[in-house]
This record gives sequence, C-alpha cells and structure tokens, in this order.
Amino acid sequence: MYSMTVHEIILVCDYLGTLAFAISGALAAARKQFDLFGGIFLGFVTAIGGGTLRDMMLNIPVAWLHDIWYFYIVVFAVGFTFVCRNYIEKYSKTLFLFDTIGISVFTIIGMQKGLALDIHPILSVMMGILTAVFGGIVRDMMCVDIPLIFRKEIYATACLIGGCAYLLLNWLACPDFISIVVASLVIFVVRTVSVIKNWSLPRFK
Amino acid sequence: MYSMTVHEIILVCDYLGTLAFAISGALAAARKQFDLFGGIFLGFVTAIGGGTLRDMMLNIPVAWLHDIWYFYIVVFAVGFTFVCRNYIEKYSKTLFLFDTIGISVFTIIGMQKGLALDIHPILSVMMGILTAVFGGIVRDMMCVDIPLIFRKEIYATACLIGGCAYLLLNWLACPDFISIVVASLVIFVVRTVSVIKNWSLPRFK
Amino acid sequence: MYSMTVHEIILVCDYLGTLAFAISGALAAARKQFDLFGGIFLGFVTAIGGGTLRDMMLNIPVAWLHDIWYFYIVVFAVGFTFVCRNYIEKYSKTLFLFDTIGISVFTIIGMQKGLALDIHPILSVMMGILTAVFGGIVRDMMCVDIPLIFRKEIYATACLIGGCAYLLLNWLACPDFISIVVASLVIFVVRTVSVIKNWSLPRFK
Repeated sequence: MYSMTVHEIILVCDYLGTLAFAISGALAAARKQFDLFGGIFLGFVTAIGGGTLRDMMLNIPVAWLHDIWYFYIVVFAVGFTFVCRNYIEKYSKTLFLFDTIGISVFTIIGMQKGLALDIHPILSVMMGILTAVFGGIVRDMMCVDIPLIFRKEIYATACLIGGCAYLLLNWLACPDFISIVVASLVIFVVRTVSVIKNWSLPRFK
Repeated sequence: MYSMTVHEIILVCDYLGTLAFAISGALAAARKQFDLFGGIFLGFVTAIGGGTLRDMMLNIPVAWLHDIWYFYIVVFAVGFTFVCRNYIEKYSKTLFLFDTIGISVFTIIGMQKGLALDIHPILSVMMGILTAVFGGIVRDMMCVDIPLIFRKEIYATACLIGGCAYLLLNWLACPDFISIVVASLVIFVVRTVSVIKNWSLPRFK
Repeated sequence: MYSMTVHEIILVCDYLGTLAFAISGALAAARKQFDLFGGIFLGFVTAIGGGTLRDMMLNIPVAWLHDIWYFYIVVFAVGFTFVCRNYIEKYSKTLFLFDTIGISVFTIIGMQKGLALDIHPILSVMMGILTAVFGGIVRDMMCVDIPLIFRKEIYATACLIGGCAYLLLNWLACPDFISIVVASLVIFVVRTVSVIKNWSLPRFK
C-alpha cells in the first residue's frame, strides 16, 4: 500500500490552497468584468503573490518558477471559473474548505522557510502570515478596493495563533511532522470557528 | 560601413520602448494632475516596473541599475511630456509605433532571461509578458484606476503568440537572431492588426 | 563618558524615522477604519516598505529581517496609536520632527547602500529617495488613495538636494561622517523650510 510522506501531504495541501486562491482571484475578476487575461493575471497574483514576495525578501528561488504545476492549477482554476461560475457558487463550502486548508499550509510553509534561514522566530511567523495574506491584498488593490482583510477578520489572527503553536511545539522538541499537523489544525479550527461565530478584531475608532 | 549587431538592435528597440512607456506614464500623471516628481516617478514605474519585477523574481541584477541610459531616457521623456504635451498628442502614431516596438522587444528580452536560467518555457513566456505588462499595471494602480489591460485587450495576447512563435522556432533549431526578428514581427503585427480591427478577449459575464 | 559612534547615531535616527513612519501608517489605517491587523500591516508597509524594495532591487539582505528592533518599534507605534490617537495628534510637531529626521537618515542610508555596490551615483541618490518615499506610496495605494506625494510636495526634492550634497562632499574627499551630517541637515532644513513656506513643485497642466 502506498502511503504519502509528510512532504507530499503538504504539497497536495499547497496545491489545494493554490486552487482555492486562484478561484477567489478569478471570482474577483468576474465581479469587476475583467477579460480572460485579467482573470488569469488576477488568479496568479492571488494564488502566488504571497509566496513570491516572501521568496524575494528571503532571497531564495521563487517556488512557482521551479514547479510548473502551480501554473497548470491556476490556469485550470481560472478557466473553470470562467466557464462554470454559477456551478462554483453552489460549492462555496468546498471552496471554503480548500481555502482554509490552503492558508494553514501557506502559513506553515512560509514560517518554515524563514526559520530555515535563521530568521527570528517572530519574523518567521510574519513570513508565514504574509504568505497567506499578501496575494489577497494585491488582488484587492488591483481591483481598486480596500483590502478586505484590513477591515474584516478573515484569517490573519488564525495564522498568528497557529504560527505561535508551531514555534511552541518546536521549542518543546516535538517531531516536526506533529508540529506541522497540530499547527495546521489550529489554524483550520480557529478560522472555521471565527467565521461561524462571526468574530472580529477591534477596529480603530 | 558600420552595421549593428542583433544585440545592438535589440538594445535600441529596448530604449525606444522605454521612451514610449515613460511617456505613457507621464501622460497618465498629467491626466491626474500630478506634480513633476509624481510624473517622473510614474514614468519610471511604467517604463522599468516590468523588468524590475522580472529581475527580482529571477534573482538576477536589475537591468536599469546597471545602465544609466534608462534613467536619462525616462527623465527626458517625462520632461519632454511636461513641456510639450500637446505636441506629443499630435504624434500619437509615432508613439504607438515605439510602444509596439517596445512591447515586442520587452517580451523577447524577458523570455530569453527566463530560458537562460532554465525556467520552464511556458513560465519564460510568462516572464516575457510580465516584462511588457507589469509597468502599465502598477501605473494604473498608482493612479487608483483599474488596470486598463485587465478589461481591454491591448497586447498581452500578442505577446503570448509571439512568445510561442519564438519557442517554436527555437525548438526547430532556428538561428537565434531569426527567431528574435520573426517573434518580434509576430507581436508587432498581431498587436497592430488587433488594434485596427478592434479585437478583444471574451469577458467574464 | 560614553559617546555614540556615527553608526549608532544613524541607527537611532533610523529607529526614530521608523517610529514616525509606522505612526503615519497607523493614522492612515485609523482614518479608513481598519482593524488592528490592518493597522499593523499598514504601519509595517509604511515604515519598512521603501527599504525592503531597495534591498530586493540591490539584491542584499532585507534590513528589518535581520534586526528584530524594527518589528518591536512598529508594533509599539501602532499599538500606541490605537490606544492614544488623540494624544498623538497633540504632538504633531514632535511627529514631524521624527518624520523629518527619519527621511533624512533613510535617504542617506539608501544612497550609501547603492554607492557601496558601485551603483551609478545618480541611481544611488534615487535609491535613497525611494527608501524615503516608497513606503508612503504603498500606504496610500493600500488605502485606495492617490499617493499624496505625487501631488503635493512633501519631501522628495529635499531628499534629492541632500543626496546631491552628499555626493558633492564625497567627491571633495570630505570625511564620511561630516558628509552624512551635512547632507542630513540639508534634507532636514530644506524640508522644514519648504513646509513652512508652503513651497510646491510645478504640476502638469
């Protein structure tokens, strides 16, 4: 029987997140009546924007330039959204699931890359959060909207809590794959609960 | 008799494109009533934004930081636009010519840089398109407009077709300078025809 | 008696500028009714955006990723603004002072990094100006406002004059710490006077 390694599971989750993020970019493009090029561009920016900025800041190879699958996934996601937009809206819960899996994994991947380069743990958590949020911020900027995440809690706090959980487990010398699984679950649960309970951060008055 | 090398011809075309892009940035600044600093900044962003992002993503030296001529061309273009804006509008066909030469060459240069680093051919074409379009996208974002190219076909498709032509010729073991000339011509012709015929891409409904 | 080295004085000024820039980001977030995450993000972008772009373009380590103090200063600045916004507005002159110290030092630091890498002196001055202005530009873009600095003279010209003063003194073989102090003072004075006298650059008509 074939069993996946931790690395492979992370990669699959990374792809699912990329898919969900690209669809979210394509849906934003649809709302703004972009053409197909605009949709593909926005799908890319949303899906790989965070990781690209992180890799450029850390001065390491940009991940999607060395794995053509990200390209295929984004183009598929945008094309699919273009053709069956109504269909997608019926599956918003599946999309939410993929999206939440995605940000969990994006956060962990981003943080691990920082830690591997001896970046300060706090800043490594920031790298993780940035990986998860920056694509959506640029998506909104390109649509000339104020980034949604600046006003309405979506997931930055979940990423922060999960990132800190990972640091704690790491510090307790927990095996890495357990830290990864637990931290991802923390992000997943905090985000899901916060959406159900409609929690939000305090605003500037 | 002095004859230019292929490299020199590309460089001259690159400069012409830089000139046209900087003027387009300065014209946008003028429409938004920016001051001279805003005009120069926007001229720069439009002219060198695409190449800068590409070089940072590919982790190679940023081209304009190592060739002062880009600076002179941009400052000249913006100053000229500042002083003789009406004059420029009379020469919109010349500007269109330079602009189209520019995007042809920008695409080829961007693609070649990707290929030289063993980036996947499809992603190298993307690097080429990015070189040609990203400066204009940031120009529009800085003007708080939805990027024109997301809604109205301008030239991304032409760059895509030309980029694929280059890959095909390369694969057929065609000498590089012929591939460059043919691919540039393809971009030039597709774009010119699509503007004359008023072609556009399908939009999201 | 302990006396600070030039390097330490620059670092303190750099921190003061970071503090002032982060507060300016937090105030912008407050005006747009962002939540706490949005405020922290905008504080970061404003305070470290210019230096980050500069370091990525110059392909050198991103400064704030290797000195955790920038993080603490930004978080403190945003938290403080969140709690005592009215208080801060009473101290607008102190803020202006920190801000002006900051841009002086940001310009010099940016320029020095360019010169150290043998970037053309003119482009090194541009790196200095970019360090001082880019964070504020992205702050305004994220708030979906046209960047203030494109329309209203704030400090780019002061940075330019100070940067040229530094180059001149360098060329005259002046000791570096004198060049730094004089150039910073030039930026400080030009900016302060231009604000008092309400000077502005010519606009596009």
